[in-house]
This record gives sequence, C-alpha cells and structure tokens, in this order.
Amino acid sequence: MHPPLALSAKAARTTEQPISYFMKQALENPDLISLAAGLVDRESLPVAEAREALGGIMNQPDIAKAALQYGTTEGLPALRERVWHHVARLDGKSLAAYGLDTSDVVITTGSQQLLYLLNEILFDPGDIVVTEAPSYFVHHSVLTSHGVRVVPVPMDEQGLRIDALEALLERFAKSGELKRLKLIYNCDYYQNPSGLTLSLSRRRELIELVKRFSHEHRLLILEDAAYRELGFEPRGLPSIKSFEEGSYHVIYAGTFSKPCAPGLKTGYALLPRDLVAPLLRAKGGHDFGSNNFSQCLIERMMADGAYDRHVAELRGVYRAKCDAILTALEEEFGDWPGASWTRPEGGMFVWLTLAGVDTGPNGKLLSTALDEGMLYVPGEFCHMPDEAGFLRRDEMRLCYGVEPPERLREAVRRLRRAADSIARASPKKASLAV
Amino acid sequence: MHPPLALSAKAARTTEQPISYFMKQALENPDLISLAAGLVDRESLPVAEAREALGGIMNQPDIAKAALQYGTTEGLPALRERVWHHVARLDGKSLAAYGLDTSDVVITTGSQQLLYLLNEILFDPGDIVVTEAPSYFVHHSVLTSHGVRVVPVPMDEQGLRIDALEALLERFAKSGELKRLKLIYNCDYYQNPSGLTLSLSRRRELIELVKRFSHEHRLLILEDAAYRELGFEPRGLPSIKSFEEGSYHVIYAGTFSKPCAPGLKTGYALLPRDLVAPLLRAKGGHDFGSNNFSQCLIERMMADGAYDRHVAELRGVYRAKCDAILTALEEEFGDWPGASWTRPEGGMFVWLTLAGVDTGPNGKLLSTALDEGMLYVPGEFCHMPDEAGFLRRDEMRLCYGVEPPERLREAVRRLRRAADSIARASPKKASLAV
Repeated sequence: MHPPLALSAKAARTTEQPISYFMKQALENPDLISLAAGLVDRESLPVAEAREALGGIMNQPDIAKAALQYGTTEGLPALRERVWHHVARLDGKSLAAYGLDTSDVVITTGSQQLLYLLNEILFDPGDIVVTEAPSYFVHHSVLTSHGVRVVPVPMDEQGLRIDALEALLERFAKSGELKRLKLIYNCDYYQNPSGLTLSLSRRRELIELVKRFSHEHRLLILEDAAYRELGFEPRGLPSIKSFEEGSYHVIYAGTFSKPCAPGLKTGYALLPRDLVAPLLRAKGGHDFGSNNFSQCLIERMMADGAYDRHVAELRGVYRAKCDAILTALEEEFGDWPGASWTRPEGGMFVWLTLAGVDTGPNGKLLSTALDEGMLYVPGEFCHMPDEAGFLRRDEMRLCYGVEPPERLREAVRRLRRAADSIARASPKKASLAV
Repeated sequence: MHPPLALSAKAARTTEQPISYFMKQALENPDLISLAAGLVDRESLPVAEAREALGGIMNQPDIAKAALQYGTTEGLPALRERVWHHVARLDGKSLAAYGLDTSDVVITTGSQQLLYLLNEILFDPGDIVVTEAPSYFVHHSVLTSHGVRVVPVPMDEQGLRIDALEALLERFAKSGELKRLKLIYNCDYYQNPSGLTLSLSRRRELIELVKRFSHEHRLLILEDAAYRELGFEPRGLPSIKSFEEGSYHVIYAGTFSKPCAPGLKTGYALLPRDLVAPLLRAKGGHDFGSNNFSQCLIERMMADGAYDRHVAELRGVYRAKCDAILTALEEEFGDWPGASWTRPEGGMFVWLTLAGVDTGPNGKLLSTALDEGMLYVPGEFCHMPDEAGFLRRDEMRLCYGVEPPERLREAVRRLRRAADSIARASPKKASLAV
C-alpha cells in the first residue's frame, strides 16, 4: 500500500554518528557522568552579557527591526568587520599584512556548516583530504558522505608531524595522487580530540609545504581554530593563516560557540578571495544567510567589550577544570602500566591512552565504565584506518568542558574502577585486546 | 606562484541567482522602489512581542543558560510539540488523525534548509521533480545544482492543473521515467511567485494521484506552506497533508520567517516517519541543529499567545498592501491590451502578465523600469523551459510585502510609464518581443 522511499546515493553514504548510540544510553542514566559530549560549561554561559546586549537591541525599535529582518548570505557587515579585526588582534598582526578585507569574511551557522560547505564546493568522490590522527569524528563522517578518501597523518606532542606529511606528499607527487589531494585539515589549537597544539615552527613549515606541493592546483589548509580562545594563557600562538603572505592557501575557521554561546550557532571563516564566491553560491542554496538576530547580538557583545571580558573569565574556568582532570588522572592512573595522557594548554579535551586495553564499542571497558557510571568517546571513533587498514583501539577522548571539577574527579575514579574490574576479570585479555 | 583552485563538479553546477545582479543595482539607487525582493514588511516586525519573550528568558538564569547552550539536531522538543499542534489547529483536524507525533517534526534553518536537505537525501543526478509553472526560482537553482531534471506543470486560477499532472504521470508511467520521478513540489498557499492558491478539491485529487502513481517507490509531495499564515481570512484552506490518511506522501514545510521574523531563520517540517532519520543524519553533517536561542524565543512567543496575536495583526497589514497594489494595477494597467494579473487571497506576491512584452533581463522593459525607479522579478526567472524548450517571457512577479501602500502605488505608476515609453519607441517590437 505504501511503497518504500527511494533515497539518494548520498543519503546512503551518510551514516549515523557512531557515538549517538552511547549518548542515548547516557541520557537514560541520570547518575552517569559523561565526559563524552563536547559541550561547553553551562555555568559560565554569558547570561548577563547577553541580557545587556539584548536590552540595547530591543529598546531601539530601528535596531530591533533590523535584527528581526532578513540578513544577507555573507552575514552582517559590522560583525564581519569585527571578526577580521579580532583575528588580527589575536595574531598580533597588522590588518594590512593579511591580504584580506571584510569581504573575505563569511558568517556561517557554526563552524560545522563551514566544514560542510567546503566539502560541497571542493570535493568530488575520490578526492583526498589529509587529517590529523586522531581527528574530529563528525568531520570524518562529513568527508565520508562526500565520498572523500581520508588519509590520516600521525601527531606527536607538537601536533601534526610535518615530516610524515612531507613524506606522504612526496609519495603522492610520485604516484599522481597529488592531483586528487585538495585539503589538509588541521585543528591547531588544543585539538579536538587530543588536546594537542601545533607548535610555532610547524605552523611556518606547514605553509611552506603546501606552497611547495601546489603543482597543478592550489593545496588548501583548513585551520579549524574552534578552541583557540579557550587557551589558558591570554596570548596563544599566532594562527597558521598569519604566516602566509597574502591569502591563498589557508581557510581560517572560527566560531562563537566555544568562547561565547553555542545556542547562538554562529561561526565564521576568513577565506582566500577566490573561494568566497563559490562558498556564497553554495550557502545561498542552503539558507541564504545564517541567523541574523544572533549575529546582531554577538556584534553588540563585541562592540561593548562584554565578549572580551567573558573570554578572559572563561580561561580561568577551563583551566581549573583541566587542572582537576589532570590531577585525577595522575592520582588514579599514575600507577597504571601503559597509561599516558596529553597535557592541554587550553580547550576542553584530554586524550588518554591505556596501552593494550580495548576502549572501543566492542571492548569490555566501555560497557564496564557505563556500569560504573561514566562515559568517554572511544578513541577509534576519532581514527580512520591507516593505509594498511590498522585502527588504533586503546585510546579515549575525555571532555572536561561540561562537568564541574569534583564530578570530573569522580568520573576518573569510576574509569579506574572499570579498568581494574576488567583487568581482574581477564588480566591477559585486557592487555592483548588491541 | 598561486595555482588555481580545484572546485568540485557540484560547485560548477551551482550558479549565482539570476536576480542577484539586479538586486545589487537596486542597492546603488536609493530612490528606487523595489518590488523584487521577497522580504517581509519591516514596520510590523514583532519587536514588542520579542522583547517581552526575551525578558522572560533572560531574567531566569536556568532558562537563559538552556537557550544559550547547544540544542539538538532535531530541534527544541517544546517547539516541535507546539508546531505540530499549531498545524493541526490550522487544519481543524484532531492530533490523533495525523499518524504523526512530535518525533516526526524537525526544526530547520528556515524552510530553505529543508528544501536543500531534501534535495540531498532524495535526488541523484537525472532524477525528476515536478514543479508548478511558474515556481520559486531559488528552489529551481537548488534542484539544478543537484543535477535534477525539473519538469514544470502549468497552473490556472485554481493552482496546479491536476489534469495536466495526471497526463504527465501517465506518460512517465509508459516511458519508464516514473522510476526517476521522486517529488512534486507545490507552494499551495498564495504561491511564490504567482499568488495563486491550490483549490480544495485539487488538494484531495493531488493526494489520490500520488498514491495511484506510487508504483515501485513512494511519490512524495513537498507542500511548501511558507505563506499560509499570511492569508487575509483567519481561516484558510486545510493543508494537502491533512487530506492523507496517515503520514506517507506529504512533507509539510512551514516557517516562522513570514508570520514572525525572518531574522530568527527558523522553519520546520512535518515528515513521513521513514524520512526523519535520513533527514537528521544529513542535518547532523550540516550543523547538528539549528540556532537554539531563536527556537527558545519563538517557543515562548507561541506559549504566551504573542505569536497568534501578531499573526492576526499581520493579516490586516498584508491585506491593505495587496488592496493598494491591486487598485494601482487596475488604475494603471486596466486599459493596457494584454495586461492581466492574479488576485491573491494572502501572501505577498502578484503575478502580472503583459502579453507580448519582453519583461526579461535582455528586454527593454526591465532597464526602462529601472530608469524610472522601480524593479520587479522577470517572470522568466520563475520558469524552467518546458519540454519543447519554450520559456515564457512576458510576465513578472511583484512583491507587495516590503513597501508601504503609497510606494506600491508609485511603483506601479513608474512601471506604467516604462511600459508606455517602450511601446512608444517601437510599438510593433514591444508586442512581438516574446
């Protein structure tokens, strides 16, 4: 009576996030402490700052009407100007030195929309994107849904390994695959999921590398700076973008979700000029412009200094949480053979390795941790199999952004109990599971 | 030194909106009266209503924090529940009779995002979509960018001609093309661009037709009800969706942009159940959820009755504007041979035919009208060539949504002066230009 739907090939390639199942389980257990979801700290959301800015908008009918009316596809001019100046100030670089102006800035529905739109305008099935290993799993699934071949390059404590990337590019140049390589994706500040930061010298080297290997077409770097403003020190490293002369290779992606409020779902991009028109044509079809009201609200918070004051407060909030989880890891896993973890300088993620323990959805640790009342993101969700088909399975992402310090400590204690419990149950299996 | 960008095949298929060029020209001439842009009336935007609702949110820290935090991909549960009940109330149908529940409602970034996501999950290049002729030009370009073959079916004063659609479907069934036909797109209330409404009996017939021609797969109807709540009478026709038993064939697309505020960029869909998961997987990649803050604001305006009061006011506003433009058309074009126009019962568009006059971007009328200080949307932008390659060129869309009554009258006077001027310059050419 009701024949089946006929969906597109792309719909068939678009799979559910592997983490969804566990997130739903977590919702059903109110006692569970989740270090899985990458949300932001609730208590420090800028309620007073937003209330004041909203008052300023809504009490002036002309400004209020402009905020409630349609915006433009590229975004609010005043916000686009502020964004660019803001990034220049973070970089300590003069405006003139960028080879940019306000028209090279596009406002997006969070940075996720930018990632998506770039996929759409850049990649055909079979094209290649280089990512860090590990990397942001939601982006992996967007790439896969576009039929992109994702090639991971390993990281160390200085971020993406430039020597490994160079070797890969040389191999691609020889094999002809360089023709299909379009973009190198890099989350260079307090990376999601590892918490690692790309070092100063590697930022310079990365630019040199993409220039050198831009043979027939221009290799692009997508610099995902989502966590940049959550650095614990007021002055972090300058962006990769700041190291290029002019604006040709680097797409700088920023967002107001982390440093301000995710409910406003507003991100932005600084783009090489010849990418602006194709991006806007695509965005025109998606929505002809992101939420104008939120753009007006953020612009006003930036204009009256509330945004900067709020970000300064956040540094302390996230630093205290990071200290709490690092202390707990030291206390609980300092004696665990093969345990090691990153020490972030900002952001909201710690990457924990338990060498030899299967942390994945089919391993014992995840279900035992759920029974103990904690949830993490299995590290394998953040990896793509390498070219030999190998997928690392003994790591996990711990998000310290959401829970308060005492709950972070309790979550790590529960994780240790879970690890102890599976080690007792089958001591050999636990260390051979990977 | 900087090799060219390598864009995707889809980027190459994504062209600029043909209207953009004229819109930019219009911005450069502040004296111009534009009846081209389909924006809403500025003066009636719900400033007081939004201010009160925002006060209610921001003065309660828990509610404010929830509004500033991430939402979910499917949207705010309270808003999804209200939306569904709201549509049922407009339809005068009991909730139980729909075969729906709150989980079949998805909130989108305006209805444009819904159109886009449906394209993505339903169509492969070469698939067929039936549209009305004329139809919404932004949707045309989204369809084209997905490689869809758009087949127009003519309208009359009762909307889409069901007899013509039936003949087409029968032909498709014989030729085998029915396999590629996925969807019939219908803007059934005060259509953009024609202002026409699908009659009551045709709503029923349309449902019967898609059921009858759902052979191997299920034919879908996309009911774009964007202008529904701008009907001049408080009780308009029930939706196409209300005529189906259960929820299988009709996707109902609604928006808060027209009846509330476009700056909040919030739309919604009532979906057949088996479309919800594919749509949410796609939306997860795009943005994992639309602007949560705006959803909370709209939900509160609906909860406290401000939304309904506002919509009731809008009826009067748009009716007065429609009266003004219809009177002006009667006065200015009543004596013009071959002039005819639609008489909308709601919405913001009148469709004017000047038989024999080339209204297109290469004709004389458009540039002469610009010189006189008015702008319209050439009708040919709203048409796809029919199967014989013919494209109608003697119509135009006039939007009465933006300008106040006295400026609408002046715009029509200017249009008449432009028409007179080209008729004087080449009386024969004007009537042979099509």
